Amino acid sequence: MKKPLILVTNDDGFTAKGIKSLIDAVSDFGDLLIVAPDKPQSGMGHAITVNEPLRISLSDYFKGHKMYICSGTPVDCIKMGIYKSKGKLPDLIVSGINHGSNVSTNVLYSGTMSAAVEGALEGIPSIGFSLLDYDMDADFEPSMHFVEKIVKEALEKKMEKGICLNVNIPKLPLSKIKGIKICRQARAFWDDTFEERTDPLGKKYYWLTGQFHDHDNGEDTDMFALENNYVSIVPTQFDMTAHHAISHLNKWEL
Amino acid sequence: MKKPLILVTNDDGFTAKGIKSLIDAVSDFGDLLIVAPDKPQSGMGHAITVNEPLRISLSDYFKGHKMYICSGTPVDCIKMGIYKSKGKLPDLIVSGINHGSNVSTNVLYSGTMSAAVEGALEGIPSIGFSLLDYDMDADFEPSMHFVEKIVKEALEKKMEKGICLNVNIPKLPLSKIKGIKICRQARAFWDDTFEERTDPLGKKYYWLTGQFHDHDNGEDTDMFALENNYVSIVPTQFDMTAHHAISHLNKWEL
Repeated sequence: MKKPLILVTNDDGFTAKGIKSLIDAVSDFGDLLIVAPDKPQSGMGHAITVNEPLRISLSDYFKGHKMYICSGTPVDCIKMGIYKSKGKLPDLIVSGINHGSNVSTNVLYSGTMSAAVEGALEGIPSIGFSLLDYDMDADFEPSMHFVEKIVKEALEKKMEKGICLNVNIPKLPLSKIKGIKICRQARAFWDDTFEERTDPLGKKYYWLTGQFHDHDNGEDTDMFALENNYVSIVPTQFDMTAHHAISHLNKWEL
Repeated sequence: MKKPLILVTNDDGFTAKGIKSLIDAVSDFGDLLIVAPDKPQSGMGHAITVNEPLRISLSDYFKGHKMYICSGTPVDCIKMGIYKSKGKLPDLIVSGINHGSNVSTNVLYSGTMSAAVEGALEGIPSIGFSLLDYDMDADFEPSMHFVEKIVKEALEKKMEKGICLNVNIPKLPLSKIKGIKICRQARAFWDDTFEERTDPLGKKYYWLTGQFHDHDNGEDTDMFALENNYVSIVPTQFDMTAHHAISHLNKWEL
C-alpha cells in the first residue's frame, strides 16, 4: 500500500521545538513534505503574500524528510506545499505544534489554524495542534501522544471535506490529562490595550497586549474542556455567513 | 442629539482612492476617527502585529477629520482605533472601499473584511465595502451611493451584535446596478499556482497567482448576485465551529 503524503507546517518557524515534535509524532504515518516559515509568523492569521514574491529553499535540516523553508506566511506554506506536490495532493495536512493556545476566537488570529483552514478550503483533511505553553522549550511529549492518536483516526476514518480540526492540549503531564472532548468554539474575546513606550530617539511606539476573557457559560466549549484538563477538538469550517441574520436583513429598506 | 462616532479603516493604505470615497460618503453621518495603514495591506487577512511594536502618527491628510496613520495591519488599525477612543466605543466601523472583490471565501484573506470581523468581535456594528475593480483610479461614485444607503440603515436599524456585513459592489454605472441582495457566501475557491521567475543574481522567486472558481449552483450567493448586476451583502460572523460535524467526530475512537 502506498504511504499517505503528509504536508507539515507551523507558524513559529522551522527551528521551533513544536514542529520538530510534530514531525517526530507523524513520521511513521506517511511520507512527509515539510514547508515551514523561515521566521516566526505568530498572529499572521489567514494572511497571504501578494505584494512581494516568495522565496523557498530546499533544506536537509530534518534528516530523512524533504523540507522547503519559505519566506511567507503559514497559508503561503500550504499553497506552496500543494504547488510542490502537484499531481498528487497531500492526504493530510498537519500544522503546529503551536507554542501557545489557539482556543476560541483565536482561530482567526492564528497562523497555525489558518494553515489548517487553508487545507480545508483545498478539500484536504487538516489538523492544527497547539499546546497551552508559550515556552520555547515547552514539553511536547504529552502532546505527541495525542497527535499520534488523532492523526491515526483522521487517516483511518474519513474526515468530511471542508472541515479541519482545531486541537488544543492542556499544559499538563500525560497522567493528568483526562481525555479528549469534541467541542464548539467558546465565545471569548480579547480585551485589548496598547503599552505605550518611548524609543531612545524620543518617539513613541506601542505593544499590543491584553487579557482574554471567556463570556461563555457553556460546558461544551473548548475553553471549558481545557479548564477541566481535557484536550479540546473543535471541528472548524470556513463559511462565515451568519445564516440566521439573512431574514432580519431582508427587512432593511435597501 | 450626539453624532455617532464612525471608525474608518481600509487595507489599501491611507492614500488609496477607495478610503477617500468612503470618508466622503459617510462624513455626514457622524464624527469620523480614521486609523488607516501607512502602506498597502492587501491579503493580510486577520493578521495582527505581535512580534514588533506599532507606530502611529496623527495626520491632517483628510481636512476636518482626525486620522492616525498606522504601521500595522487593518485589524491592528481597528484595535488601535478602539484604544484611541477608550471610554466611548465607536458606534459604527466602516472599512474600504476596497479596490477589488472580497466575495465568497475571500473574506478570509481580506484585510478589508478582517477589519470588519474584528469590529464584530468587539460587538460594534461593522461593514466592509469592496468594489469589483482593482484599478487604483476606479470609479467609486456608484459605490458611494450604496455606502450611504447601507450606512443610513445600519445606523437607524439595530445591527445584531457579533455580526458584520460584507458588501461587494459590481463594476457598473449606477443605472446598470439592479439593487441590493442579502446573500450567503458562495462556495468558491482559488485554484492557485505560482509563477516561477529568476532574479538578476540567478536566484528563483515565486509570485502567487491563480483563478477563482465558483463551485456553487445556488442563486442565493454573493457571486450569483454580483453576476446578475446586484450589490451583494453577506452577514458575516466569527464562529468557525462546524457544529454539524460534532456528532460525527464523537464516533471517533479517541
